[in-house]
Amino acid sequence: MPPVVAVDLGGTNIRAAFYSDGEPPATNSTSRPTSAADGAQAVLDHIHAAIEALAIPASARAHLAIAIGAPGPVDQARAVVLHAPNLPGWKNISLGDIMQEHWRCQVFVENDANMAVLGEWQYGSGRGAHHIVMLTIGTGIGGGVIVADRLLRGAHGLATELGHLPVQLDGPLCSCGQPGHLEALASGTAIARRVQEQGGLAQPSAAGEATTEEIAAAARAGDPVAISVLRAAAHALGTGLAGLVHTFNPELIILGGGVARAGGFFLQEVEAVLRSSLMDGAFAEGLELKPSTLGDEAALLGGLALVKTSS
Amino acid sequence: MPPVVAVDLGGTNIRAAFYSDGEPPATNSTSRPTSAADGAQAVLDHIHAAIEALAIPASARAHLAIAIGAPGPVDQARAVVLHAPNLPGWKNISLGDIMQEHWRCQVFVENDANMAVLGEWQYGSGRGAHHIVMLTIGTGIGGGVIVADRLLRGAHGLATELGHLPVQLDGPLCSCGQPGHLEALASGTAIARRVQEQGGLAQPSAAGEATTEEIAAAARAGDPVAISVLRAAAHALGTGLAGLVHTFNPELIILGGGVARAGGFFLQEVEAVLRSSLMDGAFAEGLELKPSTLGDEAALLGGLALVKTSS
Repeated sequence: MPPVVAVDLGGTNIRAAFYSDGEPPATNSTSRPTSAADGAQAVLDHIHAAIEALAIPASARAHLAIAIGAPGPVDQARAVVLHAPNLPGWKNISLGDIMQEHWRCQVFVENDANMAVLGEWQYGSGRGAHHIVMLTIGTGIGGGVIVADRLLRGAHGLATELGHLPVQLDGPLCSCGQPGHLEALASGTAIARRVQEQGGLAQPSAAGEATTEEIAAAARAGDPVAISVLRAAAHALGTGLAGLVHTFNPELIILGGGVARAGGFFLQEVEAVLRSSLMDGAFAEGLELKPSTLGDEAALLGGLALVKTSS
Repeated sequence: MPPVVAVDLGGTNIRAAFYSDGEPPATNSTSRPTSAADGAQAVLDHIHAAIEALAIPASARAHLAIAIGAPGPVDQARAVVLHAPNLPGWKNISLGDIMQEHWRCQVFVENDANMAVLGEWQYGSGRGAHHIVMLTIGTGIGGGVIVADRLLRGAHGLATELGHLPVQLDGPLCSCGQPGHLEALASGTAIARRVQEQGGLAQPSAAGEATTEEIAAAARAGDPVAISVLRAAAHALGTGLAGLVHTFNPELIILGGGVARAGGFFLQEVEAVLRSSLMDGAFAEGLELKPSTLGDEAALLGGLALVKTSS
């Protein structure tokens, strides 16, 4: 296999990994702040610097492939990031062309949640499964779906924006401006906002706004606001997942991202709501819900899988 | 091509068609009442009688294939209809085995909306498209999806029960018992119920409960209840369709069934809500919304397509 660089461009960090013989584990990896507030060009400079920091030997550069995951919908044919809500100024960025011009090699641009499900499918929780729905729940909610051993991309590569499923008509506004989307009810941002609206935790976070991990810990310790907010988020998420099960009839649901890592109490609630919200018990037969096993590495390994399946 | 019999088993009528050389048009076709109230066995007897009425020559019987569409989720591997809300007593009916035993030929059992999208894709509104979402909106709401030139079936063939997408947390109860599903807000049944709840039409239907066609006609004539109910249904349907566009990024949405046939005012509202509910204009690029062109024939021609693509 040719050498592969995988890049996971997030709102907070840029992670990059170098797979010198096109197989895991990574030969070298790096992470640096995205510095999103400094503008689109600064982020591009940081991406290049992250790849430089991998110290790729000149011999490998000649036949390198780069796979980059972006936090927003990607127009597949043109390799354009249409917009990235957590990266100010990222609107119609021709990331494929920009990377190709700079690095003079084959470049694949993909939505980051699509890369994550590819990674989990090939190297993580999803090995051996043929029909997978994955949600990455952090600042926002991303989605990736494997249908009969293929990544679901749709007509222009924009498919599976699963954070933007409407689950509450006229509900709270989402980051995209539309009402009642899953992301507006169950993302880390939505959970933190609801805790604030309900007067905060009994023992407020030292850092100001409480993180999902802190809210989950407070819920375990009996904090009534934390419990009520996480229950409401789990209700929305479990209901949305039931809709996805009716849509895709998957054998496996994988939950990734910080909110999924918040763990036990929340995930148990989500699974209970999901199972009790199915239209027929047949949908639950053989259906597993698992946390991501690859964590932050899912998208990077997905980048590797993307290059391997495309070449 | 071998001769094919296609059967569309509906809550009201059983339609059957015989394609003697495996191509449209049908050599012979028939329709008879389902008589669902008489129980599961009576319906099975009517299916057999409908096929008998096609007067298939003995020469064709020897290498016949039968494709039958059922109004509910079908466990593909076992050819079992799990349940059919509009056919009392239909719970775990081994339709494949029953038909095979009776007719001694190859039998395909498929969800009726899946058959409809196959029909539209091969012979109707969907010709030439690769990514299609179809809803059939009548008594209930069925769904069928083509992803990259393949019917989406999921792990057990239960996928695309798109009437059972939750679009309103804690909303009105659906026929399946769950709250807030699209079917509970925008099916013909839901529209008629809402008109009743709001005091009925100014000029009540002679037949008791108004049909969707009558409600649509009343809306065109300015009836305020009809307008308000159809607007609310269009709001739910357009919002749900936006979620499906975010999920599948299709190039084409096909609307079939009686409610779709109710026409202009309603479909214009649905399309306006859909387009204004998308998270990004890129999802609307090249996206078409079309009514079914095959109408009641969609599922029958889909049965023919099913046999052709399976053999």
